Amino acid sequence: MIKAIIFDLDNTLVDFMLLKRVAIDAAILAMIDAGLNITFEKTKELINTIYEAEGIEYQQVFDHLLKEVLGKMDYKIISAGIVAYRKAREAALKPYPTVFPTLIELIKMGLKLAVVSDAPSKEAWLRLSYLNFHHLFDVVITYDETRERKPSPVPFNLALEELNLKADECLMIGDWAERDMVGAKAVGMKTVFARYGDTFNTVNPESDYDINSIGELIQIIKKENNIVEVNG
Amino acid sequence: MIKAIIFDLDNTLVDFMLLKRVAIDAAILAMIDAGLNITFEKTKELINTIYEAEGIEYQQVFDHLLKEVLGKMDYKIISAGIVAYRKAREAALKPYPTVFPTLIELIKMGLKLAVVSDAPSKEAWLRLSYLNFHHLFDVVITYDETRERKPSPVPFNLALEELNLKADECLMIGDWAERDMVGAKAVGMKTVFARYGDTFNTVNPESDYDINSIGELIQIIKKENNIVEVNG
Repeated sequence: MIKAIIFDLDNTLVDFMLLKRVAIDAAILAMIDAGLNITFEKTKELINTIYEAEGIEYQQVFDHLLKEVLGKMDYKIISAGIVAYRKAREAALKPYPTVFPTLIELIKMGLKLAVVSDAPSKEAWLRLSYLNFHHLFDVVITYDETRERKPSPVPFNLALEELNLKADECLMIGDWAERDMVGAKAVGMKTVFARYGDTFNTVNPESDYDINSIGELIQIIKKENNIVEVNG
Repeated sequence: MIKAIIFDLDNTLVDFMLLKRVAIDAAILAMIDAGLNITFEKTKELINTIYEAEGIEYQQVFDHLLKEVLGKMDYKIISAGIVAYRKAREAALKPYPTVFPTLIELIKMGLKLAVVSDAPSKEAWLRLSYLNFHHLFDVVITYDETRERKPSPVPFNLALEELNLKADECLMIGDWAERDMVGAKAVGMKTVFARYGDTFNTVNPESDYDINSIGELIQIIKKENNIVEVNG
């Protein structure tokens, strides 16, 4: 019997790649508006190179960019970029459609909810708080807790320990086959592939289920737990 | 003839004390909501003590608070606080009434506009950018440029140098008599006391003018520059 659902965060609950793209585009336009004298395309290329080197959660990306382009800090330009980034990010930071009602429905069905994310603690929690999701999850495991990334069994096992459940009582949902599906399966969890996420065109995620909308989780739980619906 | 107006930023262009109070109050409520188990009043008292020790621009105030209260970091609580703080700050970060039309009117009259602020560069520029004021000012001097605070003549003289004007061609407006009025007068500028700001109940600011609304600047400039209004 499934007693808990463990969610990947980015690109499973929230469209992180969209959010990042929208926020970066807004920041570039604002920095050009404030005097940055290079093209949108060139700026975007430089930012992508910095993210590739430093990781997508790198917080000093604009400082780094300006030092590279201007050889020095320019507070007018960087502030314009940061303000535009924050405003666009907040506007774009929304759960995928039907995520919120699905989470509420799962809670009503008596399931526990957890997050296992490779994002740094602060950034993961800030996103959960912006979404007002910080009250919904019983357990949240982020990178800083274990310093191990999926598919390592360590974060999955810590989630099980904190949930006080066995692996076969949990179902993992995520959009990254090599991390979320492989890692969860290896510790003995059932797996659901979030095909609506950022899947790198994965053809066969080797998961137990493969869904196009998070709402499909409800039927999966009913099937797994032999809940018979009475009609009429 | 007055050719430039130099503005203090916090509590002269923007009601910084209100902004800070609104943002901190929202953050405290959100942290309690997320599990912080102390009263609103006690939390506020602790935060005020931290700000008194570290300065009002201290960016790690919630980290510091949680370490003091819980003995450790709690990402759920701190993220709830930071998100509430940011949302409330953005909502409360508004210029005083008539600031924007007054600045535009002064620009139309051919005056240059400057800011001389004791705030750190990044925070000052972020506030200017949030207000969309970063295009209006010809010169912005913040603490990091000179590492000297008003009433030191250093930031005032740097503003004059960047404006390429003499002191008697400039008028300084600010709400802090001992810093803004004393400092500007000492280098030879005309002074306007922003009585609507955070004035610590100053009775006699020893300024050339004393105003209750920033719009009064227009008449002051007309008088100083002998601009005769033609009626009818």
